[in-house]
Amino acid sequence: MNEEVIVYPLHGRAAKATFPPTMNSKGHLLWPLGFSAAGVYSGIKSKPTPDVGLLVCQHPASAAALFTTNKVVAAPVIVGRKHIAAGRLRGVVVNSGNANACTGKRGMADAQRMCQMAAEQLNCDADEILPSSTGIIGRLMPMEKIAQGIERAAGCLGDSVEHALQFADCILTTDLKRKAAATQFKVGRQIVRIAGVCKGSGMIGPRLDTKTGGKHATMLAYLTTDAAVSPAVLHRMLAEAGENSFNAVTVDDHTSTNDTVCIMASGLSGAKISTPAAKKSLAAALSEVCQSLAYQIAADGEGATKVVKIRVRGAATEAAAKAMARMIANSPLVKCAMNGNDPNWGRIVSAAGMAGVEFDPDRSVLTLAGAVVFRRGQPAEFNAAKVSGDMKSPEVQIDLDCRAGKGDATVWTCDLSKEYVTINADYHT
Amino acid sequence: MNEEVIVYPLHGRAAKATFPPTMNSKGHLLWPLGFSAAGVYSGIKSKPTPDVGLLVCQHPASAAALFTTNKVVAAPVIVGRKHIAAGRLRGVVVNSGNANACTGKRGMADAQRMCQMAAEQLNCDADEILPSSTGIIGRLMPMEKIAQGIERAAGCLGDSVEHALQFADCILTTDLKRKAAATQFKVGRQIVRIAGVCKGSGMIGPRLDTKTGGKHATMLAYLTTDAAVSPAVLHRMLAEAGENSFNAVTVDDHTSTNDTVCIMASGLSGAKISTPAAKKSLAAALSEVCQSLAYQIAADGEGATKVVKIRVRGAATEAAAKAMARMIANSPLVKCAMNGNDPNWGRIVSAAGMAGVEFDPDRSVLTLAGAVVFRRGQPAEFNAAKVSGDMKSPEVQIDLDCRAGKGDATVWTCDLSKEYVTINADYHT
Repeated sequence: MNEEVIVYPLHGRAAKATFPPTMNSKGHLLWPLGFSAAGVYSGIKSKPTPDVGLLVCQHPASAAALFTTNKVVAAPVIVGRKHIAAGRLRGVVVNSGNANACTGKRGMADAQRMCQMAAEQLNCDADEILPSSTGIIGRLMPMEKIAQGIERAAGCLGDSVEHALQFADCILTTDLKRKAAATQFKVGRQIVRIAGVCKGSGMIGPRLDTKTGGKHATMLAYLTTDAAVSPAVLHRMLAEAGENSFNAVTVDDHTSTNDTVCIMASGLSGAKISTPAAKKSLAAALSEVCQSLAYQIAADGEGATKVVKIRVRGAATEAAAKAMARMIANSPLVKCAMNGNDPNWGRIVSAAGMAGVEFDPDRSVLTLAGAVVFRRGQPAEFNAAKVSGDMKSPEVQIDLDCRAGKGDATVWTCDLSKEYVTINADYHT
Repeated sequence: MNEEVIVYPLHGRAAKATFPPTMNSKGHLLWPLGFSAAGVYSGIKSKPTPDVGLLVCQHPASAAALFTTNKVVAAPVIVGRKHIAAGRLRGVVVNSGNANACTGKRGMADAQRMCQMAAEQLNCDADEILPSSTGIIGRLMPMEKIAQGIERAAGCLGDSVEHALQFADCILTTDLKRKAAATQFKVGRQIVRIAGVCKGSGMIGPRLDTKTGGKHATMLAYLTTDAAVSPAVLHRMLAEAGENSFNAVTVDDHTSTNDTVCIMASGLSGAKISTPAAKKSLAAALSEVCQSLAYQIAADGEGATKVVKIRVRGAATEAAAKAMARMIANSPLVKCAMNGNDPNWGRIVSAAGMAGVEFDPDRSVLTLAGAVVFRRGQPAEFNAAKVSGDMKSPEVQIDLDCRAGKGDATVWTCDLSKEYVTINADYHT
């Protein structure tokens, strides 16, 4: 059955990665049993691509969500945090083109109204709907357009691959590529499916609250599964998966006001996630899908020409490893060197040193695109022209071994190009 | 006497700022009594501009220094921390074109050798010399060039404005402009002079250790004064001034391995800094010079077309205000908006919210280029075309009033342009 499963390759050689990943008739967002979706163009975005969507479970699903840790939170995040509290959702209502952030009381009323509109169409309570918005901050929502969008989306719900594509598209903003992943596993003899879509290209520096439930950078991700699992277990697994996927990707380290990751579990596979083995399988599958989605965000970062995978290992703790990896990933100097295929490893070592955690360069070994460039405090001899050539790849790997402990973390980012500046200097409010 | 004093305007209107500041025959680095300097071209840099220099006091000066907090420190910083411990220096030896960082034991020996060479020329002990290097990381020092450079510099020491200019130039790397400032004050009837030069354009995100004595980002600054002041008082004042100047400027938030700020006090004015009034005057003058130098770094940031001055006030604490101001200053999205003259204030508010400190947007007021754009949780009406026009200025001011406390902090940065990417993607190792 493996040929039905689409997981974006994370651990293979970059050359084998397929850009972009596609959803086939099996491994898409609506492949897990019990879900339907739709995405329509309501006129919020100037470009006529879907901008309002619904993702629906045929009955109240076990659900969990993570939100931004930004202190400035968009209205739909405030409403979403409240609605997820019970651990049950019928669906998700989303729009792109307007973030409904910094919009005051009117914005709060609009986010609640979106839920009410969706609930009326689905014949459920408004607090069974999780709302999300992404787009420009500080603009009031065009509620007439959104109202007719929700009504039209509800009128054309379905579970085909086309419906999955519509929903995947309706959350995109500056993204150039659709982002999707899916996988499956067995619990006993029963197959459990899990799938997801996400958006994110700029304002990507997610710090999802994986402790208490919350995060932000306009990154949105929605996951479906037909596992039968309790909201509490689902939340724990989502928090763990989120930490090593969405919280490990950065484009510009700008944590957004709207970041939301939401999973709904229909239970319709009949496979109960109750044994340790079943929990382990679901957790692994969830991590795989989340990491694939996060990787796709890095690959489609604004202006990106390549993915940069930064692994820091041998640090004192996992948190220390992640702090160093994140600091390397967010250094504009490192990112520009990646853009220019410049093996300027001093920028990498100095970035690791500014993470505020213990780091002894005299013990460390740095490998760039497969070549050891720095070893135990001293420059290593390497063929700069060859390394530069090897950096002209869809994925460049940076590996820093601190040789001090067992802390190990990986962060994905992209290079910083002139195109990033063009996109963000010219995208006027 | 005010006409002799050159202080780069910080608090006036941007239109009145003079780019670049110049040193006249009075207000330069060698204007305080007792100092001489020289800068020569030794062949380290490919461009034939000064790359080795000496700054010397005619007798052992009271001295203090701050260094990088990066865990990866260049050899000259390790040596400098040791040599400054006694609070006495005869001089400073500097080179540009090579950072002598990540160079292992050989690098340590080279930094010590630079001090020995300078000491032989000045007939003092090696530990009375503070060494600094700036340039590429991970290359062994060309010690033959440096040796002849130090010898030639020692042979042409002088205290003219030309000598001050040579020294100001020999620390520059990607800087397009020379950076200098000077001021004076009276203690009783005696005039005390204070002056400084610095370098910094990229890898600028100084986090100088103002607590215990240390910092890094290749920012170098050297200050001279003829005040008679103890090393302990001088260190306290330098730490305080450094916190609100060099530690409040960022270009790319990349803390360097070599950042060093050093001040020498000759005492030759005869004015003893012993009374509270005299201490207050010296502290104010030192702050003024340091802030002017920091401002000049922002103005000459790699690829910069303008200075962005970010003030956050009304925060719970000064530390909270600074954390928010720094987060706004380092957001690539905010910096690109500044480059594009785009009044996209949502990026500013959301950046403030990700600083990890308490921030309530519902109480806050954001002013951009003089216009209130966001007030108490809601968008304010403003003329976007006018604000965009006003942003086409050498200095754009962002003012965020949190209305929650008395915390007040200002950070200076520059915009992010395509030119920054060109400089840092093409500057090959």
